Amino acid sequence: MADKRKRRRSELNPEDEAQLPFKNKLKADSFILQILKELSDSSAVSSSSSSKTLDDLGLSSSCREVTDLSLSSVQATIESVILKIARSILSGNGFAFDVPSRSAANQLYVPELDRIVLKDKTALRPYANISTVRKSTITTRILQLVHQLCIKNIHVTKRDLFYTDVKLFQDQTQSDSVLDDVSCILGCTRSSLNVIAAEKGVVVGRLIFSDNGDMIDCTKMGMGGKAIPPNIDRVGDMQSDALFILLVEKDAAYIRLAEDRFYNRFPCIIVTAKGQPDVATRLFLRKMKMELKLPVLALVDSDPYGLKILSVYGCGSKNMSYDSANLTTPDIKWLGIRPSDLDKYKIPEQCRLPMTEQDIKTGKDLLEEDFVKKNPGWVEELTLMVKTKQKAEIQALSSFGFQYLSEVYLPLKLQQKDWL
Amino acid sequence: MADKRKRRRSELNPEDEAQLPFKNKLKADSFILQILKELSDSSAVSSSSSSKTLDDLGLSSSCREVTDLSLSSVQATIESVILKIARSILSGNGFAFDVPSRSAANQLYVPELDRIVLKDKTALRPYANISTVRKSTITTRILQLVHQLCIKNIHVTKRDLFYTDVKLFQDQTQSDSVLDDVSCILGCTRSSLNVIAAEKGVVVGRLIFSDNGDMIDCTKMGMGGKAIPPNIDRVGDMQSDALFILLVEKDAAYIRLAEDRFYNRFPCIIVTAKGQPDVATRLFLRKMKMELKLPVLALVDSDPYGLKILSVYGCGSKNMSYDSANLTTPDIKWLGIRPSDLDKYKIPEQCRLPMTEQDIKTGKDLLEEDFVKKNPGWVEELTLMVKTKQKAEIQALSSFGFQYLSEVYLPLKLQQKDWL
Repeated sequence: MADKRKRRRSELNPEDEAQLPFKNKLKADSFILQILKELSDSSAVSSSSSSKTLDDLGLSSSCREVTDLSLSSVQATIESVILKIARSILSGNGFAFDVPSRSAANQLYVPELDRIVLKDKTALRPYANISTVRKSTITTRILQLVHQLCIKNIHVTKRDLFYTDVKLFQDQTQSDSVLDDVSCILGCTRSSLNVIAAEKGVVVGRLIFSDNGDMIDCTKMGMGGKAIPPNIDRVGDMQSDALFILLVEKDAAYIRLAEDRFYNRFPCIIVTAKGQPDVATRLFLRKMKMELKLPVLALVDSDPYGLKILSVYGCGSKNMSYDSANLTTPDIKWLGIRPSDLDKYKIPEQCRLPMTEQDIKTGKDLLEEDFVKKNPGWVEELTLMVKTKQKAEIQALSSFGFQYLSEVYLPLKLQQKDWL
Repeated sequence: MADKRKRRRSELNPEDEAQLPFKNKLKADSFILQILKELSDSSAVSSSSSSKTLDDLGLSSSCREVTDLSLSSVQATIESVILKIARSILSGNGFAFDVPSRSAANQLYVPELDRIVLKDKTALRPYANISTVRKSTITTRILQLVHQLCIKNIHVTKRDLFYTDVKLFQDQTQSDSVLDDVSCILGCTRSSLNVIAAEKGVVVGRLIFSDNGDMIDCTKMGMGGKAIPPNIDRVGDMQSDALFILLVEKDAAYIRLAEDRFYNRFPCIIVTAKGQPDVATRLFLRKMKMELKLPVLALVDSDPYGLKILSVYGCGSKNMSYDSANLTTPDIKWLGIRPSDLDKYKIPEQCRLPMTEQDIKTGKDLLEEDFVKKNPGWVEELTLMVKTKQKAEIQALSSFGFQYLSEVYLPLKLQQKDWL
């Protein structure tokens, strides 16, 4: 019976070992584990030495950054802002907020830090001016609401915040935008304000951490994994015996790796935001990187958006540049799927997709970005993508069998240290 | 100091107890818990008695339903389908699949079952016909791929399946559609085929279950909760001391209830699919309802889509009607936000939104649906909504303070048995 089953498999199954490209190049797991140990060790060294700050670069007076503040500090800072305003009113000078500008012209990419930061331009937002009276009123109201959150020690979403005063805010973009202003005014991160975004990410693998006081063991989360908590301030006590963090763009690849328990064969932590990175997942990834000092390898689609997603994790997004120091994870390696992999791994022509005009334009725009330029390997790959006008999803590897990703492609990539 | 803090709160805080509508109507929790116990007991009785089948209704010959099959049964069924075809070819009759029709004309709402089912019309899909040769080839290929999944005992996504033969399938809608056909041909659920959808839902509260062999305690999942596993067949051993299941439409309300640990005050299990219900969450909800025999109370937006989402959980969606018996959860109660709540709870005018033309049309269409008609309470509410042309999100309750939902609205609803 066992024989029959085996024979039948080899007749029907197009995923035969012999036919799987490069499977014969794979060395023993112990060899690959040795490579991962070296990577992990070097990451621990570089993490502890290379974390430069704006101060080190002499930029702290010309650039603005926010930090995590405790709830009581946020409360005290709000109170002092309001007291200052009260004094200004009493001395006959009226009332105005001094608000850091978040416009594109006030943004700067700092290569030494490898992220986008906010410069120091500010704008006055006086109450006694027809063009700013609404915005200064909204600012005051948001400060008051955040003050309440501090006192109650609860978290709310941006949507909740909007609904507390629809008459004033009118639409949510207005309260959202002023919320970012308030972060800049107080000099604290948005998560310090206890205003959170909806959670989207999941994590599975060799990680233990506490979520709101409960200890979570991510090796015991089955196939579904653990939902990443929306409030990073209640996450702590991270422990891990992983050698690296595998950052995955999409759900489908995550599910494959979780079911195959890839993290047992190669000790790692697998994390995904299921597409566009949300704030909670970005904070969680950074916290893992910082506390565990592990290298981060990224598995994204081979298209301009894959690289863009990688860059948001790595360097930040422009609309939250004031918070880039807390949201970004330095030194993420681009493991795959890279444009050069398409030929190298013989991805069949019909599994590649032609890039649209928009794709090509996005790719060319990315080539102009500083954070791409500073990495020659990335420039080379992106140039190849724009030239061949071909893209491919991670799932394209399924053309060699459903488990090609976890059983051949990823192990081989690791064995060959094939990251950039 | 404590005094000062207290005083300061009552000065600044617009959420003062006295101002909160209906807070004074709330009775002690013990009173509400008694009501929940009665609800839970009656649900346990009705769950075990009222589960009628097509057979009971004399419809089993004119309607078609699929069941959960074990992997080895799926494998054996595929083999017998293929053998039958081989015999047909050898006897000179060529080869054709007999495929159940999934068109709208072949759908039926059965009031006794309170769900949509598929009637018994089938269509021949011959290979030797120019109009069906592609589809019959795709069907054969999907059968072969599913056969492989059975042998390997792994799960893949629909996207993976598509990528195994892009040349043949051309685009994913084609492989997806034939996958549903294959479920009908084999008479098994899509989850029996080991083809899964991306996970989206989360669960938190008084539930313990096993996910792929790991025991998960959902009271110890912090604020993030547990991601609902994509493959229900590896979920088991459900235990709970909850009195009801709270089904929440959106993430923001879920986060509020999870942070406030609402399930500790009123023992319950809180679950959300974060918007449109996905297959994994629907299967998970049904499994909880069936195994734990708990009542399900739904908290959705007061708009036509809220009711539509409720109906998908309850009665199924048309494009998967063949699987409605396994995907639907009977007897879900509409707790809120109901159109009559807007006035009853004095939701401020500016937190209500005018319905668009499209909203009103969707509302009117729903009024024609059998599953709405059979519930007079629902008809009344929906008629009110269409008449007032007003809608409101769950978050509109935040206008009375961030915790109004968990501290006043929901407890009062439960106390008044205010569900339909």
